[in-house]
Amino acid sequence: MAQKIILTGDRPTGKLHVGHYVGSLKRRVELQNSGEYDKIFIMIADAQALTDNADNPAKVRSNIMEVALDYLSVGIDPAKSDIFIQSYVTELTELTFYYMNLVTVSRLQRNPTVKSEIQMRNFETSIPVGFFCYPISQAADITAFHATTVPVGEDQMPMLEQTKEIVHKFNAVYGETLTDPQILLPENKACLRLPGTDGKAKMSKSLGNCIYLSEPEADVKKKIMSMYTDPNHIRIEDPGNLEGNTVFTYLDAFCNDGHFAEYLPEYSCLQELKDHYTRGGLGDVKVKKFLNNVMQEELSPIRARRKEYENRIGDVYDILKKGSETAKHEAEKTLAEVKHAMKIDYFDTPEFLEEQVEKFK
Amino acid sequence: MAQKIILTGDRPTGKLHVGHYVGSLKRRVELQNSGEYDKIFIMIADAQALTDNADNPAKVRSNIMEVALDYLSVGIDPAKSDIFIQSYVTELTELTFYYMNLVTVSRLQRNPTVKSEIQMRNFETSIPVGFFCYPISQAADITAFHATTVPVGEDQMPMLEQTKEIVHKFNAVYGETLTDPQILLPENKACLRLPGTDGKAKMSKSLGNCIYLSEPEADVKKKIMSMYTDPNHIRIEDPGNLEGNTVFTYLDAFCNDGHFAEYLPEYSCLQELKDHYTRGGLGDVKVKKFLNNVMQEELSPIRARRKEYENRIGDVYDILKKGSETAKHEAEKTLAEVKHAMKIDYFDTPEFLEEQVEKFK
Repeated sequence: MAQKIILTGDRPTGKLHVGHYVGSLKRRVELQNSGEYDKIFIMIADAQALTDNADNPAKVRSNIMEVALDYLSVGIDPAKSDIFIQSYVTELTELTFYYMNLVTVSRLQRNPTVKSEIQMRNFETSIPVGFFCYPISQAADITAFHATTVPVGEDQMPMLEQTKEIVHKFNAVYGETLTDPQILLPENKACLRLPGTDGKAKMSKSLGNCIYLSEPEADVKKKIMSMYTDPNHIRIEDPGNLEGNTVFTYLDAFCNDGHFAEYLPEYSCLQELKDHYTRGGLGDVKVKKFLNNVMQEELSPIRARRKEYENRIGDVYDILKKGSETAKHEAEKTLAEVKHAMKIDYFDTPEFLEEQVEKFK
Repeated sequence: MAQKIILTGDRPTGKLHVGHYVGSLKRRVELQNSGEYDKIFIMIADAQALTDNADNPAKVRSNIMEVALDYLSVGIDPAKSDIFIQSYVTELTELTFYYMNLVTVSRLQRNPTVKSEIQMRNFETSIPVGFFCYPISQAADITAFHATTVPVGEDQMPMLEQTKEIVHKFNAVYGETLTDPQILLPENKACLRLPGTDGKAKMSKSLGNCIYLSEPEADVKKKIMSMYTDPNHIRIEDPGNLEGNTVFTYLDAFCNDGHFAEYLPEYSCLQELKDHYTRGGLGDVKVKKFLNNVMQEELSPIRARRKEYENRIGDVYDILKKGSETAKHEAEKTLAEVKHAMKIDYFDTPEFLEEQVEKFK
């Protein structure tokens, strides 16, 4: 039976936050521990981060270890998952190079993710070519490991479509070689894109509206207690609105019935709490305190594990090095298959010489 | 003193013809034998050929040995020049990948060579990304060898400008690393772009208007005797026109005064022959026979050397293999410098670990 292989990862442009956690990291740990996957590759995408940070390589470099620590803290287990640094796997750039021949410029221009990211980054007419081509680079990342499963958010759907197109085109032109990957979407809607603590759709370091996985308990509490709720919910007795109410969005993402039994036993589940809030008589402070309890319960063991790993940086370095070597070895095998299919492995098999001797006989 | 290094090459999409010869190959041999250059790298650009031949890799593959034989036949000496196959030097794709971050999409769109080649190939809206990016790939080829000198035609000027821009940008962002190359233009104007035998500006296999270096003597003669001249020069006594007269363009490119002494002693130089032709009384056949003598003198030793090498295909294969290994070794050194400058050589120096240990102390 064919192997089940996961490829996923993050750009090292900052510490990971709770949005990354509920949107992706928590799921990865579940998938890792499910035992259903033969191989799991988790990529710290420094080369991809450089496509829009070419002028600031120090930022990328300094966040590699942060992301590695975040991975280990949430429960990524190097015995089960392979954490690697993208730029170490040089085969990925070679795959990208050849896949670039299979995609047209106009096809890239139509990619909705690229379109919106270009807008977000204010690139407009001055998009770096590397950034413009990153859907092709992602196809290289995914196919280098023969990944069958790519657990990402819905916003990454167009990227995966691009990869599938490249796989189909390559296999059609050069013969069956690459593996067609499937997207694995998050199950919990609230987890798809967690808003910032200020209610803004996008969490961003510069807006100061993120809760980081590595943040101290007191800082997390402070951010939760000043979280955006319903601006018209002024007096406790006023009916509150759930729509765009960040505290409730976070509860959707984080809490379960067990949390009520432990921290807020007067309600049995989130729906009861929501009902009380919407009919009036429930204050924001009480809900925020509950959210704080729920989130601290989730974040405490992560923080503790991070502290441990921070004291063993040499070991984390070794994990990254070993993971990168393993990933490189896998990618080497795929690249050899790719170059053999393209028949550009002139010196690796006797065929090329034999052909030429025959031709000039 | 800094080394003088040449990088040049050709796409293996067909056998090389006399246009390649006078426009570039002959000059390369002169430069090689001048002893002025420390290293000479001559690239068979299979990876670049694939950017617009992705669907037809067999064509590229089958022409690699043809181009190698043409090189050796014209006098490229593997003891002095390094002939290599581009795709073997995988470091070139990695350099391309990182240089792509330093060039904008709109900058590539403005490149006049790319513009005209897109037109020529009827790509228009469906340009392959790899083809669109080939000026960046060329910058990788040139800089990988710290080339100081790139002997190419005037039409390649915009490509070299792109390389120089990348070199300057890279050195400004990451520190002085790459070498700024200079273009070396052909001296003889007629050699810049030799027309086809039918007078068309572009030689092309499909038009059947090329004289190949490997063509038998009789075929060359036949092509010369039916060459395009002045369509209004009907009777011998008519005054002839030199403008657009292919036979005279070829004489400009190929003949010297010595040829007159040997094959047409009634004239002392080309100017005398031209004067007679323009005032009338000189027939095309006489001029064509002279051109045939001139060209056969140049092509005979090339054909003879080709025959020799065709009988030693195994040796040619070894030359290519050894050349490719040498080129790869050079490119590896440059890539290490590049990645060190970008500080993405995490596992190659102790710095990264030391920084991280310090940071989390």
